[in-house]
Amino acid sequence: MLGMFCIRACSGLVGRWTATCVRSLHVFPGITVDQIDEEVSKLLQLKAQLGGDDGKNQFVLKTPKGTRDYNPKQMAIREKVFNTIVGCFKRHGAETIDTPVFELKETLTGKYGEDSKLIYDLKDQGGELLALRYDLTVPFARYLAMNKITNIKRYHIAKVYRRDNPAMTRGRYREFYQCDFDIAGQYDAMIPDAECLKIVHEILSELDLGDFRIKVNDRRILDGMFAVCGVPDDKFRTICSTVDKLDKMPWEEVKKEMVNEKGLSEEAADQIGEYVSMQGGMDLAERLLQDQKMSQSKLACAGLSDIKLLFTYLQLFQVTDKVVFDLSLARGLDYYTGIIYEAVLTQAGVAPVTTEAQNGAAAEESVSVGSVAGGGRYDGLVGMFDPKGRKVPCVGVSIGIERVFSIMEQKAEASTEKIRTTEVQIMVASAQKNLLEEKLKLVTELWNAGIKAEVMYKKNPKLLSQLQHCEESGIPLVAILGEQELKDGVVKLRVVATREEVDISRAALIDEVWRRTSAA
Amino acid sequence: MLGMFCIRACSGLVGRWTATCVRSLHVFPGITVDQIDEEVSKLLQLKAQLGGDDGKNQFVLKTPKGTRDYNPKQMAIREKVFNTIVGCFKRHGAETIDTPVFELKETLTGKYGEDSKLIYDLKDQGGELLALRYDLTVPFARYLAMNKITNIKRYHIAKVYRRDNPAMTRGRYREFYQCDFDIAGQYDAMIPDAECLKIVHEILSELDLGDFRIKVNDRRILDGMFAVCGVPDDKFRTICSTVDKLDKMPWEEVKKEMVNEKGLSEEAADQIGEYVSMQGGMDLAERLLQDQKMSQSKLACAGLSDIKLLFTYLQLFQVTDKVVFDLSLARGLDYYTGIIYEAVLTQAGVAPVTTEAQNGAAAEESVSVGSVAGGGRYDGLVGMFDPKGRKVPCVGVSIGIERVFSIMEQKAEASTEKIRTTEVQIMVASAQKNLLEEKLKLVTELWNAGIKAEVMYKKNPKLLSQLQHCEESGIPLVAILGEQELKDGVVKLRVVATREEVDISRAALIDEVWRRTSAA
Repeated sequence: MLGMFCIRACSGLVGRWTATCVRSLHVFPGITVDQIDEEVSKLLQLKAQLGGDDGKNQFVLKTPKGTRDYNPKQMAIREKVFNTIVGCFKRHGAETIDTPVFELKETLTGKYGEDSKLIYDLKDQGGELLALRYDLTVPFARYLAMNKITNIKRYHIAKVYRRDNPAMTRGRYREFYQCDFDIAGQYDAMIPDAECLKIVHEILSELDLGDFRIKVNDRRILDGMFAVCGVPDDKFRTICSTVDKLDKMPWEEVKKEMVNEKGLSEEAADQIGEYVSMQGGMDLAERLLQDQKMSQSKLACAGLSDIKLLFTYLQLFQVTDKVVFDLSLARGLDYYTGIIYEAVLTQAGVAPVTTEAQNGAAAEESVSVGSVAGGGRYDGLVGMFDPKGRKVPCVGVSIGIERVFSIMEQKAEASTEKIRTTEVQIMVASAQKNLLEEKLKLVTELWNAGIKAEVMYKKNPKLLSQLQHCEESGIPLVAILGEQELKDGVVKLRVVATREEVDISRAALIDEVWRRTSAA
Repeated sequence: MLGMFCIRACSGLVGRWTATCVRSLHVFPGITVDQIDEEVSKLLQLKAQLGGDDGKNQFVLKTPKGTRDYNPKQMAIREKVFNTIVGCFKRHGAETIDTPVFELKETLTGKYGEDSKLIYDLKDQGGELLALRYDLTVPFARYLAMNKITNIKRYHIAKVYRRDNPAMTRGRYREFYQCDFDIAGQYDAMIPDAECLKIVHEILSELDLGDFRIKVNDRRILDGMFAVCGVPDDKFRTICSTVDKLDKMPWEEVKKEMVNEKGLSEEAADQIGEYVSMQGGMDLAERLLQDQKMSQSKLACAGLSDIKLLFTYLQLFQVTDKVVFDLSLARGLDYYTGIIYEAVLTQAGVAPVTTEAQNGAAAEESVSVGSVAGGGRYDGLVGMFDPKGRKVPCVGVSIGIERVFSIMEQKAEASTEKIRTTEVQIMVASAQKNLLEEKLKLVTELWNAGIKAEVMYKKNPKLLSQLQHCEESGIPLVAILGEQELKDGVVKLRVVATREEVDISRAALIDEVWRRTSAA
């Protein structure tokens, strides 16, 4: 049956290609040899794709480019990471919402600047023009405006979609999770902003990924700095995106790009270079407020005052050990209006993804992928959706969860501890034949008591294969039934790890299973 | 800024429409008045959509047709339902996997028969041709074949996408969740099949949605029945889909469709009519095995023997009270090969969705939307993906979770009990001014101890508004700070429900909060 399926699929496709060729010949009698060659090469390519020359037709079995399946082990890790993150979001009183995976195309356009070309569009099959969501922030803003919500603290964990060029971004995915926490509402300055940083600090500490730093800056400080350094207004954005490369390139190269490619004066570039090398805490903000040049910009001063206030709150939240005010931080997205931040892992040896590094190409990427969280304030985005332009100030953070998954997977592989993919407490087994009915009765008793239990789907499985299944999937207990046990009204309870066996009365079994597995 | 945005968006669209009109006039000088009228009406429609005649331009603020957002209350219900379902799947030892939201187009084609036209395609933006997943079963089969997995018990909870015609399927969504549990592997007959029914029974009982029935049949019994009733081979599928309408139409209408539209003989239809009116348990299967006509079909006999065996196991699983062997059950999807089943809610008064019924149109739908779970055996699907056609027998069940959500939402609305959307245990508040720093210190202590706590993002909020927030979001405790309390090293702990207040030493606060909130 499969053979037929493949041949049909294959010949259907080839048929279509051939028809195209032949039609071309009819319609354009002047078809060139080059064109024929091209068609032939397309056909051969197709043939290769379908199984090569060995006569077997192969169906292409893969997930779309840039996507992957999660197997049960990866899911077990994912569940653990999500529990930690959601636990933190809930500790801070967040509600959660969900939005559709696609939005009206017009909801997304005009929100991401240059990145808009990476949006996945749906095919026009009649009806509305749709596109897959690119992040969770724009749908959140659309949700707030649509429902006229002016106050909310919400988290949203869901997949987003970007047609990223894999040559540029090795190791990244086109479908990936975002874990966003945002606070919307008109509040006193820097209190919600500080809580976002507290949340990043809590999550990264709890996930135990190694040491980290949270870099903080402010869009207004950047813009003020560009102004006082003599960057023309219309070059702010492009110079800003060059500054953004400082975590991947040395200053000399960044400067070269500013001067040679972007046409900035050498003098302006040097002044920027001085500022963006500065890192510190509240003291740096105070110093810059006194800085002769910087203090000329009202915008920069507003940003610097807020950084000072932010650090006051961060001290109360006990997180200043990891936070650094860094003038080189310049996040890409257009919608930020105030504070911006980014968390990076600083511990060497954690960043490289060893499994991916094996294929050489990914190795270089591992140097610059330390970023695991980022966010900032975007006070104008909701207003873009509101018919009357009413603004809802927002600040939020997004946890770069795919990086975290990779690191946790590496740690799991390096560890001797086995990851369990199920939580089964006990297996119902037997050494003798013809006991299926008795086993099904017992497993029903256990399920009905809320115990996680399994039985093999065979009438007469071998005891060894039943025990092997327990070892492989980490099931700690086995309830063994035999003629004698049934007569005595007991089961033989076996502890898989120690092979210790003890008879337990049927009446006492459920309590005994809870007692022995509740510590786990 | 918003104004500009809207006008640009609007005039851009109108411009395009107008250009179309004008171009038409140039290219086809023979354009009719009707055509012009049509274009004008389109333009006016567009104008209405963009904000009507009042001069204000409105951005279209909506989710795509057939989709919806989930607000925090709906999410709280969703979380509760998922916890119940996942709890059951885990109790039965299932692992979980995840697959991408889109697949290669060719992975989906040829798997859904007629329904293929409802698949959402992605736009061809260069690269692979992709489509959104239509269910979780075909991606599961692709996953098994791709990874050469021959044994797995897995659940998968995720959204699927169908471009259903909303005129036909009111109240249904184009983006909706599926909760699937499947057992893949070569096992002894009917043991995994029976466990799937046990799982449906457990979930529907635990969700407490009212009384239910699980109808069971077998694709082989249906096909055998058609054969012995004299249905020509090439009409099996189409007659089967007519039988499938029996839960929505009386037999007389179904018969009319068979005879008048599908060209079946009246005699054959009457014979089918006799069989499909039969319902029972193991006894019915035994009787049909003796039935003069039915027993002529080997296929039917194989199915009937398996139904008998299934009921033996269902008795051991203690679920026969809800399961009925029903010869009229005929599920649509092509890939089923053996046992099929469907669970329906039977309690009147639960099915109609009152909120939707208000707009008349949805009212009639509510009569026939009792189905809340369905599934069956599909032994051929994995083989369709395997290059060598190796088969992996599978049986599974899908919980119709959107129906469950609707019912739970109604129940929640009817109930006096308020749904909490957060789990906050305590709010840190003060009656006096200038205590923000002290409040931030205290909330940090609580967070660091793992307590879910909130503080208002205002320097000097009114005590009343702090207490109001607690009442609204169901926060049970308030820690009130004042100059006196700070001096005494205590906090005033207020129980929101009783307004009782008691001084607790700072050192004892955390234990006290746990003690008072762990019962909840």
